[in-house]
Amino acid sequence: MLGKDYEGQDCGLARALEVVGERWTLLILRDAFYGVRRFNDFAVHLDTPRAVLASRLQRLVGAELLAKDGDSYVLTKAGQELWPAVYALMRWGVRFQDGRRLRRFLHAECKAILDEVGRCPRCGVTPPPGDVLTAGAGARPRRDDVVSAALHAPRRLLEPLTL
Amino acid sequence: MLGKDYEGQDCGLARALEVVGERWTLLILRDAFYGVRRFNDFAVHLDTPRAVLASRLQRLVGAELLAKDGDSYVLTKAGQELWPAVYALMRWGVRFQDGRRLRRFLHAECKAILDEVGRCPRCGVTPPPGDVLTAGAGARPRRDDVVSAALHAPRRLLEPLTL
Repeated sequence: MLGKDYEGQDCGLARALEVVGERWTLLILRDAFYGVRRFNDFAVHLDTPRAVLASRLQRLVGAELLAKDGDSYVLTKAGQELWPAVYALMRWGVRFQDGRRLRRFLHAECKAILDEVGRCPRCGVTPPPGDVLTAGAGARPRRDDVVSAALHAPRRLLEPLTL
Repeated sequence: MLGKDYEGQDCGLARALEVVGERWTLLILRDAFYGVRRFNDFAVHLDTPRAVLASRLQRLVGAELLAKDGDSYVLTKAGQELWPAVYALMRWGVRFQDGRRLRRFLHAECKAILDEVGRCPRCGVTPPPGDVLTAGAGARPRRDDVVSAALHAPRRLLEPLTL
């Protein structure tokens, strides 16, 4: 078995991967950016075994990337700052591994489509996630759970999902 | 055990993580950006068990992120396009998990320090990795292997490391 940390590695990337490098963790954070906050909504959308999901959420709360607010898991400032990394990985995955559909990400203020690094080509700013609109690509979502349906409609990142 | 893929997840991020989400993989790619190309240099710098390193390199070649050129592993175009994601994760790790030292990344042309998303604030471009200079922070590297020493000096990304 490999350990969970990279003690010998003197680098921010190693530190980052110690916190977000476990399986499912970045997908959970992606959903949190999309406004998913409740355990059941993560579970329905991710098809993660519940024990795995519980353990990942607990670690993310421990690392202060998510904060627990009643029944909700909400991105902290440190969690929100992962947006450029999540966005860049997502773009790369669509471009080189999938190639079919690209979820749209727009600058909320001017509705321009963001570029490769999440920058608005019209305004010249890189909007934080709360200023980004998104919507699923294609006429309907490929998954048929209720969370996928809700996330397919245009919405602003970080706005809590209500079902 | 969790599988290696995320079949049910309709998202570029899931596709990306299927290729680069395994332990050590992003650190290997980081070293490839720094110009590391030979098995032994990766091994010395990463302290990875050799069997793990061999398996990760083989997968990266299979996924066409690295190409084998004689004894060297060289980033392909698809591999090089991961730079914004690697850079963003590294920056986040330094900022929120480490906080001490930040490796410097400069635009080769004008020597300005790149911003949070890897953009040159002076020229307004986001240079590809081959146009980025880097150097370790601080007076000397924290690790004492020969690769760390070589990577501590200012160098251009993607330029092959020669020891």
